[in-house]
Amino acid sequence: MPVIVDTLALVGTGLIGGSFALALKEAGAVRTVFGVGRNPARLTVARELGLIDRTADWAEAGQADCILLALPVGETETVLRQLAPHLKPGAIVTDAGSTKANVVAAAHAALGARFADFVPGHPIAGSEQSGPGAARADLYRGKRVVLTPQAGTRGEATATVRALWEAAGAQVETLDAALHDRVFAAVSHLPHLAAFALVDELAQRADSEIFFRFAASGFRDFTRIAGSSPEMWRDIALANRTAVLAELDAYVEALQAIRAAVSAEDAETLLKLFARARAAREHWMKTQDV
Amino acid sequence: MPVIVDTLALVGTGLIGGSFALALKEAGAVRTVFGVGRNPARLTVARELGLIDRTADWAEAGQADCILLALPVGETETVLRQLAPHLKPGAIVTDAGSTKANVVAAAHAALGARFADFVPGHPIAGSEQSGPGAARADLYRGKRVVLTPQAGTRGEATATVRALWEAAGAQVETLDAALHDRVFAAVSHLPHLAAFALVDELAQRADSEIFFRFAASGFRDFTRIAGSSPEMWRDIALANRTAVLAELDAYVEALQAIRAAVSAEDAETLLKLFARARAAREHWMKTQDV
Repeated sequence: MPVIVDTLALVGTGLIGGSFALALKEAGAVRTVFGVGRNPARLTVARELGLIDRTADWAEAGQADCILLALPVGETETVLRQLAPHLKPGAIVTDAGSTKANVVAAAHAALGARFADFVPGHPIAGSEQSGPGAARADLYRGKRVVLTPQAGTRGEATATVRALWEAAGAQVETLDAALHDRVFAAVSHLPHLAAFALVDELAQRADSEIFFRFAASGFRDFTRIAGSSPEMWRDIALANRTAVLAELDAYVEALQAIRAAVSAEDAETLLKLFARARAAREHWMKTQDV
Repeated sequence: MPVIVDTLALVGTGLIGGSFALALKEAGAVRTVFGVGRNPARLTVARELGLIDRTADWAEAGQADCILLALPVGETETVLRQLAPHLKPGAIVTDAGSTKANVVAAAHAALGARFADFVPGHPIAGSEQSGPGAARADLYRGKRVVLTPQAGTRGEATATVRALWEAAGAQVETLDAALHDRVFAAVSHLPHLAAFALVDELAQRADSEIFFRFAASGFRDFTRIAGSSPEMWRDIALANRTAVLAELDAYVEALQAIRAAVSAEDAETLLKLFARARAAREHWMKTQDV
């Protein structure tokens, strides 16, 4: 594969950023990878693991051809403000945040005229693992990446970011940023909050030990995402607040409908609902490679 | 291993009953397995798969040394009433239902004096797979089985059922039936209802396709249990109605607490809650082999 960008700078060298770099190196799509961050120990680990070739400061990062932000979305604006004065002409900035409307707003505020070079992105891959040690070259293989370019985004910048993700093995789609946030509030953010809520509610009980003692594989899978990063999910819940609140309300309403059926011993409604849910999930599983 | 019972009758030859029989045969703990049921085609499959040696009617099943009921809990009383007149002296009856107080009540009503020979049980194993084809000899290996013997239960009957489950590789514990129902309402029944609710709520949307399109591995695991049998879960929700209602209320309250924190942009409360949940789950994972 031909080189797509000569130099890549990672702001954030954890699972998401590190895997991106590993995949692009393996594909021959990038020559040199810089790592930028506030945590020197973490950057050292990233270098030792081969995720980055060397560490850089903001001025050097701004000279890269492409800069990927892979950090909690709440930090986007601060980081972009530090980076903005150093951006070389033509440098492309992109991100891997789980919410997009707030990232777009942050980029707009921080980048001024260079907003045209910012390509908002969201790889639909990850794990409850995090940190540089979890990075792997095949994380994005066969996974979707959503880009939400804006009216003012330079087409060439979008094309380059698309090419990079494709080189990492991903399937790239574009979506409207607001629709992105609504969709992910429903299929990702809400399930995470629901899993955190379930585990915490149990853990706060005085007799929680007896409950956890008999929890089994169904509980394990249902709550797997409650093992995710608290900081990251705090940021996402707040960054996508409006859509998340709407999804929480819809979910509580659905639970109340089940509650009403159980309370009324309405066997028929329960059977219909459970059967519909199972059929929908089976249909989904057939259409997906997850 | 010495034979524990000469003949075992299965009422229900699906995943749970079939796996019990396979494990006991493999362990040499049982000589002959009868299958009883209303569905001749299913019994034929069970025989062809080697889960049972032959089919039997209620009169023959009553002559078995041990009879396991492995069917939706709503059918317990009907089945026990058909079996009761045929029970030979000393025959032990047990079940594998996911709820216990209602099964105990059904057995009390149906078995009269022979209630002493009924050992309520619940193997904590299973899968969203079901049917005879899903049965396997190692399903219970290392898994927990909860028995909830009553004051009137014959000690020898409980000991035999315990020995059978241990021969199948399980770790047997006893619990009070009401506590059992409360615990499983929280760690199993509620998560199932919550998963069904989430999938159905999405599936009922006019634009559901775009949501499912971007659902990924977190969604897959969170909703795995929404692939479970609708009939079985209808029965469980109704059989354990009081405890399930209490758990639904506690869960909705926990979700409302998260909603309030998101609405108020209370980052600190969210971070604390998510971190507590993750720590509780990590602690649990270390104590379990699930």
